[in-house]
Amino acid sequence: MFEDMAKRSATWITGDGPESEIVLSSRIRFARNIADFKFPPSADTDTRDKIIEFVKGSFQSADLLNEGEFFLSSDINSLDQSFLVERHLISPEFMKGGTGRGVFIDNSENLSIMVNEEDHLRLQAISAGLSMNECWEMANEIDTRLAKKMDFAYDDKFGHLTSCPTNVGTGLRASILIHLPGLVLTREIDNVISRISKVGLVVRGFYGEGTDVLGNLFQISNQTTLGRSEEEIIDSLAKVTQQIIEYELKSQETLMQDAADQIEDKVWRSYGILKHARVLNSGEVMNLLSALRLGVSLKLIDKVSLDQINELLIVTQPAHLQKYYEKEMDNNERDMIRAGLVRERLSK
Amino acid sequence: MFEDMAKRSATWITGDGPESEIVLSSRIRFARNIADFKFPPSADTDTRDKIIEFVKGSFQSADLLNEGEFFLSSDINSLDQSFLVERHLISPEFMKGGTGRGVFIDNSENLSIMVNEEDHLRLQAISAGLSMNECWEMANEIDTRLAKKMDFAYDDKFGHLTSCPTNVGTGLRASILIHLPGLVLTREIDNVISRISKVGLVVRGFYGEGTDVLGNLFQISNQTTLGRSEEEIIDSLAKVTQQIIEYELKSQETLMQDAADQIEDKVWRSYGILKHARVLNSGEVMNLLSALRLGVSLKLIDKVSLDQINELLIVTQPAHLQKYYEKEMDNNERDMIRAGLVRERLSK
Repeated sequence: MFEDMAKRSATWITGDGPESEIVLSSRIRFARNIADFKFPPSADTDTRDKIIEFVKGSFQSADLLNEGEFFLSSDINSLDQSFLVERHLISPEFMKGGTGRGVFIDNSENLSIMVNEEDHLRLQAISAGLSMNECWEMANEIDTRLAKKMDFAYDDKFGHLTSCPTNVGTGLRASILIHLPGLVLTREIDNVISRISKVGLVVRGFYGEGTDVLGNLFQISNQTTLGRSEEEIIDSLAKVTQQIIEYELKSQETLMQDAADQIEDKVWRSYGILKHARVLNSGEVMNLLSALRLGVSLKLIDKVSLDQINELLIVTQPAHLQKYYEKEMDNNERDMIRAGLVRERLSK
Repeated sequence: MFEDMAKRSATWITGDGPESEIVLSSRIRFARNIADFKFPPSADTDTRDKIIEFVKGSFQSADLLNEGEFFLSSDINSLDQSFLVERHLISPEFMKGGTGRGVFIDNSENLSIMVNEEDHLRLQAISAGLSMNECWEMANEIDTRLAKKMDFAYDDKFGHLTSCPTNVGTGLRASILIHLPGLVLTREIDNVISRISKVGLVVRGFYGEGTDVLGNLFQISNQTTLGRSEEEIIDSLAKVTQQIIEYELKSQETLMQDAADQIEDKVWRSYGILKHARVLNSGEVMNLLSALRLGVSLKLIDKVSLDQINELLIVTQPAHLQKYYEKEMDNNERDMIRAGLVRERLSK
C-alpha cells in the first residue's frame, strides 16, 4: 500500500510556494460531524461502522472517489499509518484509535479526510508555502460538495458542533509549518512563542500536538474557532505569520552581522556531515537539514535547493525510509540507510 | 626567516617510513656538555656567549656550517621560535630561556643542535616512521665529528655528564611519535601507558614534556640513560614500540569487529567537516585528522594519503599557518585561514 506515494515527493513540500524560504506549508482543517450519528468518542463499534458506510456512500455520490481513494484504518498496517503521519495526511491520534476509522486521500495528496477520528470528518487541505487561501478554497469546495450529501451537526448560535469545545464554531483550524532557525539561534524564539500565544495562536512541534520541535520547524495554528469567522481566523494567522517572517529575517540579519563566520561554518559543516556521514538518526538529520536550509536562504551555499532539503526532511523519516526501500528495518539499520539516502541525494 | 622552510614539508613527517601507518617519526637526542665551561643553568651571560662562540667555531671546523645554518636565539623572533617548536627542531624549553642560546639546523632538517638549552649541546636526529637506527647513525656521525673538536664533559664511571641527572650516562633520549586512535577509542590507552611506565619509558603529548595529548598522538621515550648502553636503550624502545603497534592494530581490529559502522561514520564525518568547515581551531583539526588517519590505515577512505594528513598536522599549527601566509594573525583569523588551507589541501 502507498508504494507509489513513497517514491514521489509530497506536493506540499515542494519549495516553490509563497515565502517558501521560511514557510514550508499551509494547512486548513475543517472539523465536521453528521447530525444523525453519535460523535466518535461516544459511538460504539457498530455505530462507527455505520458512519463509515454512510460517509463512503456520500463520498461516492459527491464524486470524491474518482479523485482519490478511501482506506479503512483496519486495512492500513502500522508502518503505513506512520508513513501517512509523516506525510501529514493523518494525525498521530488517528493511529491510536483502533478500528472503525478511515481516511480519504485525493490523488494530488493536497486533500485528505479522516473519518471517525475525534470528529466524524476531519477535512484537510494542505499546500506549499504561505498559501492559506489556496488551502481554504480547496477545503471549501469539498466541504460544499459534502454538505449537499449529508446534514452536518450545526447550531445556529454556536455554528458547527464538534467533539472538543475548542473546535466548536467554524470547526476550522488553520496552520502553517514554519522554519525559524534564526529565532532559535538568537534565542528570541521563546519571546516570539509567548507573544504568539497571547493572540490566541498555539505553537507545536513538527507532527502537531504534543510532539517535539525538530529541525527548528514549528507548527503555528489558531487555538479556538468559536465566535470568529473563517476569514478572521485565516487573516489573523496570515498576519501573525508575516510578522514572524519579519522577526525571523531580522534575526538572520543579526546573525550575519554578529557571527557570519560561525553561521557559514555551521552551514558548511552540516553539509559536510550530511554528505559524508555513514550513520544518521532522524533527529540529527533534521537539525543538519535545518542548518543547510538556513544556508540556502542566506545564499551561503548553492549546492542544494530548498526543494531537495524539504524533500529530504520527509523522505528521511523512519516510515518513509522503510516504504522507500520496501522493507522493515530496525533503528540501527535505518540510521545507516538514511545516511546512504542523504549522500545519494546530495550527490545529485 | 625560515620562509622557505615554511613552504616545504618536513622530511620526518612524510608518511613513507617503516610502520608509518602508526609511527609518525623517530628521534634520537644526545645531551653533551663541554668540559671547560659551566653548565648552562649556572653559566652567566658572559659565559654563555663564550660557549656560543666556541661552539660556532667548532661547528665551523667540523664542517657543519656547510651543511646547514646556525641561528642565535636573539635573532629568532617569537613567531619563528614557535614555528621551530612546531617543526620539532627546538624544544619548548629553548624558547623560555631568553638570550645566549643558539640552534644549528641542517639543510635536510633531519638534524638540529640546540646550544645552551639545558645542556651545552642537544643534538637531535629525526626521521620518518619507526627508524631509530637511522636516527642513531645520523646523530652518531655528528657526535663523532664534534668530539674531535671539543672535549665533552665525561666521567669514566658515569659516562656523559649532564645538567639533569636523568640524562647522565649515554645522554641519549630515544623517542617516537606514535598515533594510537584505536587504543584511545577502546579505552585501552591508560592500561598501555601504565605498562609502558613500568619498563622505564615515559609517555608525553605532541610537543613533549608537559604538553597535552592532541589528535591521539603520543611521544614515547626512555626515562633515564644511566647504566644502560645506547644499544640497550634503543633496542628496548624499539621492542616496546613493536608491542604497542601490535596492541594498536589489535584494538583497531576489535573496533572494526564491534563497531565498524560507527568507526566508518566517524572517519567520514571527520572528512566531511575538514573538507567543508569554515572555522577550525588547532585542537579540533588534530582530532579530525586523527580520525581521518585511522580511516586511511583501515582502508575505509582513500581520498587522502598519510603523507597529506601528516603534513596537515604540522602545517595547520598556529605558527606554521602564520609563516605560510606570511602574516601574524589572531586566534579567530587563524581558525578561518586554517579551515581554508585544509579545504584547499583536501581538494587536491
